[in-house]
Amino acid sequence: MISVEEAQQQVLSRISVLEPERVGLLDSLGRVLAEDVVSDIDVSPFDNSAMDGYAVRYVDVRDASEDSPTVLRVVDHIPAGVQPEIVVNPGQAARIMTGAPIPMGADSVVMVEHTRPDTGEGGIGDTVAVLRPVTLGENVRSRGEEVREGQSVLLAGETIGPAAIGLAASVGHAELAVRRRPRVAIVSTGDELVDVAEKPGPGKIRNSNSYSLAAQVVQAGGEPHVLGVARDTEDSTRELLERAPEFDLMITTGGVSMGDFDVVKKVLEEIGELEFWRVAMRPGGPQTFGTIGGTPFFGLPGNPTSTMVGFELFVRPAIRKMAGFTSLVRPRVVATLTHDTRKKADRRYFLRSRLTRGADGGYTVAVSGNQSSALLTAMHRGNCLMSLPEGESFVAAGSEVICIRLDVEEGTA
Amino acid sequence: MISVEEAQQQVLSRISVLEPERVGLLDSLGRVLAEDVVSDIDVSPFDNSAMDGYAVRYVDVRDASEDSPTVLRVVDHIPAGVQPEIVVNPGQAARIMTGAPIPMGADSVVMVEHTRPDTGEGGIGDTVAVLRPVTLGENVRSRGEEVREGQSVLLAGETIGPAAIGLAASVGHAELAVRRRPRVAIVSTGDELVDVAEKPGPGKIRNSNSYSLAAQVVQAGGEPHVLGVARDTEDSTRELLERAPEFDLMITTGGVSMGDFDVVKKVLEEIGELEFWRVAMRPGGPQTFGTIGGTPFFGLPGNPTSTMVGFELFVRPAIRKMAGFTSLVRPRVVATLTHDTRKKADRRYFLRSRLTRGADGGYTVAVSGNQSSALLTAMHRGNCLMSLPEGESFVAAGSEVICIRLDVEEGTA
Repeated sequence: MISVEEAQQQVLSRISVLEPERVGLLDSLGRVLAEDVVSDIDVSPFDNSAMDGYAVRYVDVRDASEDSPTVLRVVDHIPAGVQPEIVVNPGQAARIMTGAPIPMGADSVVMVEHTRPDTGEGGIGDTVAVLRPVTLGENVRSRGEEVREGQSVLLAGETIGPAAIGLAASVGHAELAVRRRPRVAIVSTGDELVDVAEKPGPGKIRNSNSYSLAAQVVQAGGEPHVLGVARDTEDSTRELLERAPEFDLMITTGGVSMGDFDVVKKVLEEIGELEFWRVAMRPGGPQTFGTIGGTPFFGLPGNPTSTMVGFELFVRPAIRKMAGFTSLVRPRVVATLTHDTRKKADRRYFLRSRLTRGADGGYTVAVSGNQSSALLTAMHRGNCLMSLPEGESFVAAGSEVICIRLDVEEGTA
Repeated sequence: MISVEEAQQQVLSRISVLEPERVGLLDSLGRVLAEDVVSDIDVSPFDNSAMDGYAVRYVDVRDASEDSPTVLRVVDHIPAGVQPEIVVNPGQAARIMTGAPIPMGADSVVMVEHTRPDTGEGGIGDTVAVLRPVTLGENVRSRGEEVREGQSVLLAGETIGPAAIGLAASVGHAELAVRRRPRVAIVSTGDELVDVAEKPGPGKIRNSNSYSLAAQVVQAGGEPHVLGVARDTEDSTRELLERAPEFDLMITTGGVSMGDFDVVKKVLEEIGELEFWRVAMRPGGPQTFGTIGGTPFFGLPGNPTSTMVGFELFVRPAIRKMAGFTSLVRPRVVATLTHDTRKKADRRYFLRSRLTRGADGGYTVAVSGNQSSALLTAMHRGNCLMSLPEGESFVAAGSEVICIRLDVEEGTA
């Protein structure tokens, strides 16, 4: 048996980042950028107004005040999107909208709130009274002020969120090069499994693991491919396991404990390479890892909770590494345990638990249901795995324990 | 001008939860359950073994010990998925795998680790030495122990995660009734907008808002429909706004400030109902809200940052309410500001900022870039909105400030 950390390190040492692919902007959401995004324009692309107001010559209005306003003649009216063709000469101003180009001659913008119509309504041909001075360049966004053509606005390795998508669009990228989503094959094993739509006969149970696993794969950023159920024979198991090289990663559930009909490990040793098969943890000691034709292979235990916990600890970091993420560890918090807990001293426990934040900002934690359940109720009601270390056989109420948050993404502060 | 809270309340009072639809299990991921999920079976469906070991009669082994083992004759070997047909009589045992049905006659299971082959290898016809006693029913999962047929395992209103999907599969549901995803129409307005693929000519900028907004809609749980760009005329704007009733919600960007060409508010008043159009906040004071033919309508400002912040504060809670979520507020944390900040006292500021967690578990926060930027750089680099209250014009370094986390889902502890 190896420790959880040894197993995690051994897994990640076998995982490589996948190649990039080009996808449309919206498809890049949540994925990892594979190359820098370079601007094809200056931003701003031209000197433009940051406010609705009047474009003026700074020297004209530097003495303007409420008591002694400067009166200017309005010679143009410039909406956004229009290239002005009239020059603002001394004693003149142009009505200008936010985002519109600054006309020749003008160098600053007076906010509309700091003006008052003098004759007419402040339109072309009218005069406007400026009530406050401006500084040179005030309310003007200069060309290239934020980004110069050829400069990078996003860097390879960054995760694409809505703001990154907007940024990329602003600088001319309708597609982005991002890391490919890992294609993950899912195989369930066991003669006892029947389909969800079927009512289980005597001795049978429903194959729920392929559904929960597919959902976990989606949440981790992978693309699930449910291949079906292998029966408890070497032939049936080999037939599905041999398909591993068609995918980036393969997961099986069941068939890896010490039962006499557990053939997954046997077939893995025959057609691939076994790296480890026992981890000092509970639930789910029999966590098998190896490769088949170079494809990483995870033989998770068949109990639904053990399957999900094994996925969280070993498969999710592997999928994220393949997808280009560098944060591979879920956030941990320290919480105060609200009840006594007994455990076996020889292994790490991961109790399905619920964290609650108190008014003081501190956390308390309690198990979220029956830990030996065949159902996923405690996993569903929980939001973390309470990690209780090897070497302890009793953890008292009031102890501080480490909790692995399942409700928060890796890399979150 | 109304306050942010008044605006948020006014929005939510106009939003109704959408009707349910039935979807396949994997499509239900991340959505809100619309009806209880009832089990069609007992779980466990039959008395079965929680361990690999030997099914025994408790009275036979109650005095077993390492020094004085009880020797039993092995009469059967029961894998999972097979209905046993041999009765375990006094002095007998059946080899049994995890999940396999308990045979008639037996009432308890001895773990294989607490036995030793006595003759042969502990198979049928051999004898096995039991080294420890069991309690009555030990290692047996009883029929209906966890759930009885007809009992609910998931409740309407719960959010579907991977564990809920596994649970639903276990109890016979290949489909679930969940709240429909809101269909959200996105319209950009402005003569200055050109397509991403186009290089902006003089006075033009790229239409990046429909991309960032579509990504925000996806992350909020909605389905974006980008309708295109309305030009700065009432006819062009009316043509697109009239389509609002085809959708659950409509968002426009631009055309709502005080500029002379801002026609969105005018058209909204003509063909719909205006609820509010100015909120005491920065960025993005001109946040317009109303209804068109009963469909909620958001006229967000055109500046990319103002658009995204307006979406976060007003549109995202609306989409989530429609989709059935009851947690509509992003988690807040209190953080220590690392720099002095000046602001206008008459409105709430939402600064694009980055939270960092220190070794002591406390947070510090600093702005994540130029706050007056036309680009989304600070939004991209940030992970929160620092909320600075009305009434203050200066917030000193070292002050405690409230931060709205953008990297963590609503309802997270």
